[in-house]
Amino acid sequence: MNIRASVVGAAGFAGIELVRLLLRHPDFELASVTSDALAGTPVSQAYPAFAGQTDLVFSACDDAAFDGCDVAFLAVPHTASLGMAPGLLARGVSVIDLSADFRLKDPAVYERWYKTPHTASRLLPEAAFGLPELARGELERAAAARAEGKAALVACAGCYPTATSLAAAPALASGLVDEAGIVVVDAVSGVTGAGKKATERTHFCFADGNLEAYGVGTHRHTPEIEQILRIPGRVVFTPHLAPLGRGLLSTVTLPLAPGAPLPRVEDLAERYAAFYAGDAFVQVLPAGTLPRTASVVGTNRAHVGVGVAEGARAIVAVGAIDNLGKGAAGQAVQCANVVFGLPETRGLEAVAMPV
Amino acid sequence: MNIRASVVGAAGFAGIELVRLLLRHPDFELASVTSDALAGTPVSQAYPAFAGQTDLVFSACDDAAFDGCDVAFLAVPHTASLGMAPGLLARGVSVIDLSADFRLKDPAVYERWYKTPHTASRLLPEAAFGLPELARGELERAAAARAEGKAALVACAGCYPTATSLAAAPALASGLVDEAGIVVVDAVSGVTGAGKKATERTHFCFADGNLEAYGVGTHRHTPEIEQILRIPGRVVFTPHLAPLGRGLLSTVTLPLAPGAPLPRVEDLAERYAAFYAGDAFVQVLPAGTLPRTASVVGTNRAHVGVGVAEGARAIVAVGAIDNLGKGAAGQAVQCANVVFGLPETRGLEAVAMPV
Amino acid sequence: MNIRASVVGAAGFAGIELVRLLLRHPDFELASVTSDALAGTPVSQAYPAFAGQTDLVFSACDDAAFDGCDVAFLAVPHTASLGMAPGLLARGVSVIDLSADFRLKDPAVYERWYKTPHTASRLLPEAAFGLPELARGELERAAAARAEGKAALVACAGCYPTATSLAAAPALASGLVDEAGIVVVDAVSGVTGAGKKATERTHFCFADGNLEAYGVGTHRHTPEIEQILRIPGRVVFTPHLAPLGRGLLSTVTLPLAPGAPLPRVEDLAERYAAFYAGDAFVQVLPAGTLPRTASVVGTNRAHVGVGVAEGARAIVAVGAIDNLGKGAAGQAVQCANVVFGLPETRGLEAVAMPV
Amino acid sequence: MNIRASVVGAAGFAGIELVRLLLRHPDFELASVTSDALAGTPVSQAYPAFAGQTDLVFSACDDAAFDGCDVAFLAVPHTASLGMAPGLLARGVSVIDLSADFRLKDPAVYERWYKTPHTASRLLPEAAFGLPELARGELERAAAARAEGKAALVACAGCYPTATSLAAAPALASGLVDEAGIVVVDAVSGVTGAGKKATERTHFCFADGNLEAYGVGTHRHTPEIEQILRIPGRVVFTPHLAPLGRGLLSTVTLPLAPGAPLPRVEDLAERYAAFYAGDAFVQVLPAGTLPRTASVVGTNRAHVGVGVAEGARAIVAVGAIDNLGKGAAGQAVQCANVVFGLPETRGLEAVAMPV
Repeated sequence: MNIRASVVGAAGFAGIELVRLLLRHPDFELASVTSDALAGTPVSQAYPAFAGQTDLVFSACDDAAFDGCDVAFLAVPHTASLGMAPGLLARGVSVIDLSADFRLKDPAVYERWYKTPHTASRLLPEAAFGLPELARGELERAAAARAEGKAALVACAGCYPTATSLAAAPALASGLVDEAGIVVVDAVSGVTGAGKKATERTHFCFADGNLEAYGVGTHRHTPEIEQILRIPGRVVFTPHLAPLGRGLLSTVTLPLAPGAPLPRVEDLAERYAAFYAGDAFVQVLPAGTLPRTASVVGTNRAHVGVGVAEGARAIVAVGAIDNLGKGAAGQAVQCANVVFGLPETRGLEAVAMPV
Repeated sequence: MNIRASVVGAAGFAGIELVRLLLRHPDFELASVTSDALAGTPVSQAYPAFAGQTDLVFSACDDAAFDGCDVAFLAVPHTASLGMAPGLLARGVSVIDLSADFRLKDPAVYERWYKTPHTASRLLPEAAFGLPELARGELERAAAARAEGKAALVACAGCYPTATSLAAAPALASGLVDEAGIVVVDAVSGVTGAGKKATERTHFCFADGNLEAYGVGTHRHTPEIEQILRIPGRVVFTPHLAPLGRGLLSTVTLPLAPGAPLPRVEDLAERYAAFYAGDAFVQVLPAGTLPRTASVVGTNRAHVGVGVAEGARAIVAVGAIDNLGKGAAGQAVQCANVVFGLPETRGLEAVAMPV
Repeated sequence: MNIRASVVGAAGFAGIELVRLLLRHPDFELASVTSDALAGTPVSQAYPAFAGQTDLVFSACDDAAFDGCDVAFLAVPHTASLGMAPGLLARGVSVIDLSADFRLKDPAVYERWYKTPHTASRLLPEAAFGLPELARGELERAAAARAEGKAALVACAGCYPTATSLAAAPALASGLVDEAGIVVVDAVSGVTGAGKKATERTHFCFADGNLEAYGVGTHRHTPEIEQILRIPGRVVFTPHLAPLGRGLLSTVTLPLAPGAPLPRVEDLAERYAAFYAGDAFVQVLPAGTLPRTASVVGTNRAHVGVGVAEGARAIVAVGAIDNLGKGAAGQAVQCANVVFGLPETRGLEAVAMPV
Repeated sequence: MNIRASVVGAAGFAGIELVRLLLRHPDFELASVTSDALAGTPVSQAYPAFAGQTDLVFSACDDAAFDGCDVAFLAVPHTASLGMAPGLLARGVSVIDLSADFRLKDPAVYERWYKTPHTASRLLPEAAFGLPELARGELERAAAARAEGKAALVACAGCYPTATSLAAAPALASGLVDEAGIVVVDAVSGVTGAGKKATERTHFCFADGNLEAYGVGTHRHTPEIEQILRIPGRVVFTPHLAPLGRGLLSTVTLPLAPGAPLPRVEDLAERYAAFYAGDAFVQVLPAGTLPRTASVVGTNRAHVGVGVAEGARAIVAVGAIDNLGKGAAGQAVQCANVVFGLPETRGLEAVAMPV
């Protein structure tokens, strides 16, 4: 196929990773890569990894950027997609949105957490949630509609929600977890998660050799996790920053239901493997093995491992992803693959550097 | 004063940090630094940071190493202290033990978690727990006895238990926390926590750029945390490894009691500050600020910050220490200061490098 | 094509990178991956990046490992290839050797620097030097011979010599450099260059946050650089270690000949670009831009940049590669591509992660 | 003593390290710490390492900041000191200048390299160069004048010149080095050397995992190195950036004079040790050992090691310092100690963390 794609916000970290993936994707063709700040600058000048690999130049994000486009990947801050998506869809351009704007089904929840009105809430019912392993049906419905001519809108899951939900979903589905209990999510991200903007927080000299928690009780991925896992009001989510570029690890502690038998780790790992049996990108590790972020960096893969805390009776599930891969650009391409009727793994076959 | 000290296991990471601290301590004098593996090697050859700073040579750990010693710091693996402490105490040498051997009050708990018999359990009643902020009384009793001629035995708290307990104790003391709930501890350590032994796990190329969880449900610091906080069977502790040398961050999630009012973060921070009002090494950060490990590396300080998760009703408390400082060598010196009647902060005044 | 390949020493860092590249190479098929230490262990257990990606199991390096093989990649320490290559060639298996055993044309030089007899010197005349950009002729001759049935022997260039020679060769070819002067090479490598063995030197806690020089005047890559550049006795080579996993930067200072005009940087960069006009993997950066190792990590690319020091009259040329890519596994695949008549870039199209 | 000091530019990296050193210095008292950007902000808010350690608040840099001050440390960009020093000296405030403004003895050289007029060149003759080991006489003269009431002006050496000159000086003094040859300096700095400003270059995600050269042939430390070593027009200096916070390593290659005998490394190391026999902060490592930056981070120490390249006949000397310690704040305090008649090591006794 020859699907013409635009990447909006292509100079940001998720955007430029999309550029990397789409440049090598056999079915997509990059029609434009936009960046308001870097319009006119060659991609290979801003990111020398592309030296000699592409002549693409960042352009302004105007109407011309979408001429003849089949799909736009929006790697933009929240509220920007609210403004752009309606017009693109009306032009027949499918939208793969990496922002948070269409993730939350209830606009009131969006408005409470993002503290801004949801100006495109009429699109929410048709927005497919972009986390194929846990919501493939929504994407397939969008693909079917697109095949009949209706541009698709995909709201790709956030990075923390992806790793967390992939780790927690099979446990919650098992019936072993206390339905009255809280689910504690402590997750750690690399610094790319903080974005390209040069700030004191992303300065090498403050980030290196440092661990910190942030956004206790206030991070906007909390309602997204609760929505995916269908456990409203039960998630305590604390994000952390660690000194690495790419990679995200989410550790989820789920208390066992009062009467539930204590599971053997081997059985739990088996349940998990069965849960993800049809999913090419989720690898459940054998009992006794826990995921390492380095083993998935640069890929669209998620590694998931489980353990059991006997004394306090809880399941501990751990998910590792590349926050820019399965947590952003990779997942967006995976969703686009589904929407355009391609094999889910197309263009996403990379294996992480083993060392 | 002129207190003669021996550091046993001085070539390990906690041991060599003890050497660094004691070399500059105005009241201690290093009588011997032992290392079975490096006996005969100058300290400055094994650790060039000491080039030109000391002529000390690692020696074997034999009787002569303790001649004229007032105190021995045991920076050794567990079970080694079981063998050494009785003889040293009998010789009148006070023991500051950094191993786990005398931390757990109940030898049965020790035997269950460490899977080895406790061969010196008769010493347990007199072992003072070495976490001054939460058990200063025990240390003061040991100091009083020492002043009357009885050698002291101090079991210094582990690194994870120190950061975790300092973060959790004021919340638990507040009466706000659900006494039936589980307490979730997700903690992250730098690689020095894995010790000096060169293994695949500590290899730069596997540790750098990587996050991982380990020891889910099985880490031996679990019963120690439960003992300090007096919440047996209620702790789910998951340790993690992150790519930095020194530094440890513990994030503790404590569910609020069903009827408890939701605390304001400011009030909670104030309670915390009051709790540690008399403690020179614990700094409670203002509401809205969370600790960074880099701000305590190289010191004996702990930074503690708190947050509140409204929806799921929980307190989140975060503690940051240097695992080799307040988590090991610094704390050992702090305990020795108490035992020998010195100001608690003597020799521990260092401020972290600001950047 | 369907070329059956064996990787010998596949559990080491260069070996496992070869496995990663060959698994995705459209024309090679992995017949065996050997490791004496890990025989019987699944590749995905030793390197979890491969979880779910391959069922390969490390095997012993015995005759069976090469059954039906067309080519063996030897990622082994020096002297091991001396033992293996003759037998493999005799069996008709082409050898792509990543060790140093067949790099130096003169066995006496080998014996002087490696302090061991060269036991297979009769093969030296037929060994093609594996640095296509600077010795493509040798590889093409080997390819022609192989096409007529004679197994090929390729001695892939070392990591430091590759980066250094690619940076220096165009300057030396320009006639501007003082033929009596010394050429100073200061190069910095990531820790993967020190190999997989867990040692104090590769321990995260000693390597992180540290820069050091090593092997002053004694590194075995010195004669290799001198041979490639044809400047015997004129190279001062000082390697350094820096805290990163993959990546190697070589800075080469070449004094201008007494009468030579001071070149403009722009002209020099143009000369360089012309020199490498036909080479897909060498990217000469525009004047004013210097290479970053991060822009080539994970790839077979080399970035080269130049500058001019006016006062002291010297050219400074800088080359960046991934020591495991263009410095080892990538280059080996590139050489194999040539030897087997494939396009040089086959299987090596990856672009570095931009961030 | 009780010397009242002001740190100007105290919120920058060198400035805040000065604050850390002076807070613990027994003879200096911090009268003011100025920062235009952070005036009114508590030091401990900007740099949480100081939480609980000081109540100092950054103030504007106005006349009041220097009331009653004996000395001002100027940690400011070049040209700023040109403006401030004359007034301070006129008020009787000694100036320890960390900028480049008074380092170059010849204002024409300053104007050529810094591309700005030297507006205070009348002060140049009295400015003492701040690199005690190589110019102690200048400092002692300033100290003598100060003792008689004349405020001192010290131009502290830059970071690269300090490490480089300490490594090169004994070789140049030995008579072994070719006086017609060029001296090649390849030096690598941690990211603190790039300053506190958050830029793309200092962004963790661009700096981590990356090595790069910069400023080939144009770095302003070139004439400073040539001045200190008295080898005008003979230095080729190429600085590099590596992924660590603090630490600087300079590798200096000096060709042997045509007739000079090839020195034994042991003899050379001995010469070096003799050269620095009276210097507390310079440690010459034994032959065969080369410096590691990690062994001096956080201190005012320099480690120096040497090697010999036989084939090409050159001495290779390597110097390691903490760029914020001996390369900036530590050296400034050392110079102030001399100027105020204190022991040179006062307040600078720290030993680096061994790991």
